[in-house]
Amino acid sequence: METVIKNAVTDLEDILQNDQISTNPTILEQHSKDESYHKSSLPDVVVFPKCNKEVSEIVQIAAKHKLHVTPFGLGSCLEGHVIPYEHGITIDFSLMNKVLEIREKDFIVKVQPGVTRKQLNNELKKYGLFFPVDPGANATIGGMTATNASGTMSVRYGIMRDNVRNLEVVLADGSIIHTGNSAAKSSSGLHLNGLFVGSEGTLGCFTEITLKVYGIPEHITAARASFQTINEAVEAVVAIRQAGIPVARMELVDEPSMVQVNQHMDSNYQEVPTLFLEFHGNEAGLKQDVAFTEEIVKDFNCIEIHFETDNAKRNQLWDARHNLAYAYIHAYRGRKLMVTDVCLPISELAGAIHHAREALDTLHLPGGIVGHVGDGNYHALIMVNTEDSEEIQKAEAFNKQIVDYSLSRGGTCTGEHGVGIGKAKYQQQEHGDALNVMKSIKKALDPTGLFNPGKIF
Amino acid sequence: METVIKNAVTDLEDILQNDQISTNPTILEQHSKDESYHKSSLPDVVVFPKCNKEVSEIVQIAAKHKLHVTPFGLGSCLEGHVIPYEHGITIDFSLMNKVLEIREKDFIVKVQPGVTRKQLNNELKKYGLFFPVDPGANATIGGMTATNASGTMSVRYGIMRDNVRNLEVVLADGSIIHTGNSAAKSSSGLHLNGLFVGSEGTLGCFTEITLKVYGIPEHITAARASFQTINEAVEAVVAIRQAGIPVARMELVDEPSMVQVNQHMDSNYQEVPTLFLEFHGNEAGLKQDVAFTEEIVKDFNCIEIHFETDNAKRNQLWDARHNLAYAYIHAYRGRKLMVTDVCLPISELAGAIHHAREALDTLHLPGGIVGHVGDGNYHALIMVNTEDSEEIQKAEAFNKQIVDYSLSRGGTCTGEHGVGIGKAKYQQQEHGDALNVMKSIKKALDPTGLFNPGKIF
Repeated sequence: METVIKNAVTDLEDILQNDQISTNPTILEQHSKDESYHKSSLPDVVVFPKCNKEVSEIVQIAAKHKLHVTPFGLGSCLEGHVIPYEHGITIDFSLMNKVLEIREKDFIVKVQPGVTRKQLNNELKKYGLFFPVDPGANATIGGMTATNASGTMSVRYGIMRDNVRNLEVVLADGSIIHTGNSAAKSSSGLHLNGLFVGSEGTLGCFTEITLKVYGIPEHITAARASFQTINEAVEAVVAIRQAGIPVARMELVDEPSMVQVNQHMDSNYQEVPTLFLEFHGNEAGLKQDVAFTEEIVKDFNCIEIHFETDNAKRNQLWDARHNLAYAYIHAYRGRKLMVTDVCLPISELAGAIHHAREALDTLHLPGGIVGHVGDGNYHALIMVNTEDSEEIQKAEAFNKQIVDYSLSRGGTCTGEHGVGIGKAKYQQQEHGDALNVMKSIKKALDPTGLFNPGKIF
Repeated sequence: METVIKNAVTDLEDILQNDQISTNPTILEQHSKDESYHKSSLPDVVVFPKCNKEVSEIVQIAAKHKLHVTPFGLGSCLEGHVIPYEHGITIDFSLMNKVLEIREKDFIVKVQPGVTRKQLNNELKKYGLFFPVDPGANATIGGMTATNASGTMSVRYGIMRDNVRNLEVVLADGSIIHTGNSAAKSSSGLHLNGLFVGSEGTLGCFTEITLKVYGIPEHITAARASFQTINEAVEAVVAIRQAGIPVARMELVDEPSMVQVNQHMDSNYQEVPTLFLEFHGNEAGLKQDVAFTEEIVKDFNCIEIHFETDNAKRNQLWDARHNLAYAYIHAYRGRKLMVTDVCLPISELAGAIHHAREALDTLHLPGGIVGHVGDGNYHALIMVNTEDSEEIQKAEAFNKQIVDYSLSRGGTCTGEHGVGIGKAKYQQQEHGDALNVMKSIKKALDPTGLFNPGKIF
């Protein structure tokens, strides 16, 4: 072990218990990667703090020894956010996994960053509440905040940034700040909440997160609508949005991905372009919404629409949707997942998906298209052989095509996965001179570049 | 005229037409104040640019001559945001007042900063769309973006920050950036959109604003519910929120303010604590929501609840609510308006309003309490004699009491009016060390302190 690491570990031993510090190769390896195709890289040491004070002291020790700091939730990210390419200290938040406070009347909850979204929803259920942001993985709230995650319900309930009320953050100098408050809105000072949500560990470490939560809807109906073409499915989405129907979920799954759904669920749904929908509301209103939707999809040659109000069956359906990336990963062992993540104005969505589908067909790689199409966000999932550099190049060229298409039509290179290492190359193209503003903020808050180097910027 | 001003005007004359530059005393006086009790201060010169290029050149001329820049919409703000205490150049955006693009399918609209909210809604109506953020005044979209305004519909549709998709901003060096894109969501880069919304002209000048807009609801019902006590009215609000009824508006008006409403509307509503409510939705769902609400308010000894579906009468009702501040101003000529603006977690709202009411009664000044109570945001309006320094002191002490109460209970010093000069003194108390982060961002983006000095920081 290098002297600098040894000295840092000695300092860490002064403030942490022995089982909170690890240089064990297996542990280092677990913290060297995420769930994507991005190359792995080992941290020098992994620490497991239990409170904000420990996080602050770890950051100060890192700064003293000029070691980089990488915050780590569960490693379920998809653009290499947690991979420590410059090594240093990885802070794993798995011991900070408590739901600290549930305030039913205020519809807010305070959690530690290591709480996972399923753990949170299990706790909230007792109070008739739920938290709607649901990326595919059972990610940590800290990670979801860092990447500004969204998911299937954002079309109705918003993304992480819309649902974070307050953050406790440890900054590069070890100081601890709060970025918001517990009120529903505020016009006081600059909006640090929104700045830190989506900052991907480049500005500081979150130690407490206050979230907005929601009452479990009185009535829920799910629907599965099968179409002849992907284009008709997407056009139906646009029409439903135009009609002002407040859908809670609106997911597209293409033919190859329906094959995966059937395998994963042991179901025999038609393997055609399919919309998964969900409606939340009071009984009477919901009935009217559902009837109106049924009318609209018929205009787009919907083959079949099937409604589901049974809770267990509904959950099974959404589990299948959530596990689609894993279904691909399991079906193509030995290959790794590359997933595009653009988001466009909804008027551009049909064209974008058509373009992606044609390009995907020329790749001759296993994969499919799914998406949170109510938001204009879709993913092309491709299973790549990371040993084959030509294949990687081909897949990356495809990803670039998708991004170019989106950026030229007013969209973004990432709707929900974040920049990490994978989308850093598109930041100048997307943001132009605004990237300089982002860089100057990074420099003002983290002048030595302590936090998560190489990500975003 | 000072030499420095003369030289600046000479430079301005090179890039603007003569009628776009004014040092006329009446024009200067119009740009020396807002609608509040805050002391006025004259700019040296007022300019009226017509495009982003002119704004950029004005900013560069100001920088060259070391003159401060203050952006100005309509001057309807309430905390002195547009008052140029350090003089310099005021940029009036009234000639940049075009709705540039309406994209119905995407539910977005691009406007220049000088467009007013009523002007925008008149344009949008033709497309069956509306923009929900509605501060009392017919403010400009630029000003509403600068203060992160909200209003009566934020409980359902969010605040300015939730509804701004993209901003074109002229920075202190004259460069022009875009802070977002036209997609419904993004996880790309740091969130500059949210940072610039609510920055009160301290970080740059907005030259284009892209907003999220909404379809006009299929059905709308308004309601006016009268209560015996203000406490019961507030408790009813909490209960309606708890029940998960998606109210679109939820406004409290106290007894003295109902007197103003009656005078202004020539109506004879009961002069008791009153909730103004509104429901948006499909016909069936709305009926069920309304029936449920009626049941709930009865539990809180509601004296009378009256529903209104007629469009004209409904608009009249909301006009009365919107014009309340003006009603007070007209009723007490010679006095000026001071208005508190705290926002608290909703569980703290009843206590806060009770506390405010008791404190207000001891002041013996004309005034009342109104509020966007669905958000936990309320205002005490007080009419003060600005010639009487003792009275001003008394009113300011009252404002401080209200703020202290809010901050000690997890709230904020300003829910929607912004900081300006009036709430700058509470920033350290509210934000603690986070204020240093805000200051370092200000310094990074505007190192010479060109923009709107003395505001927020």
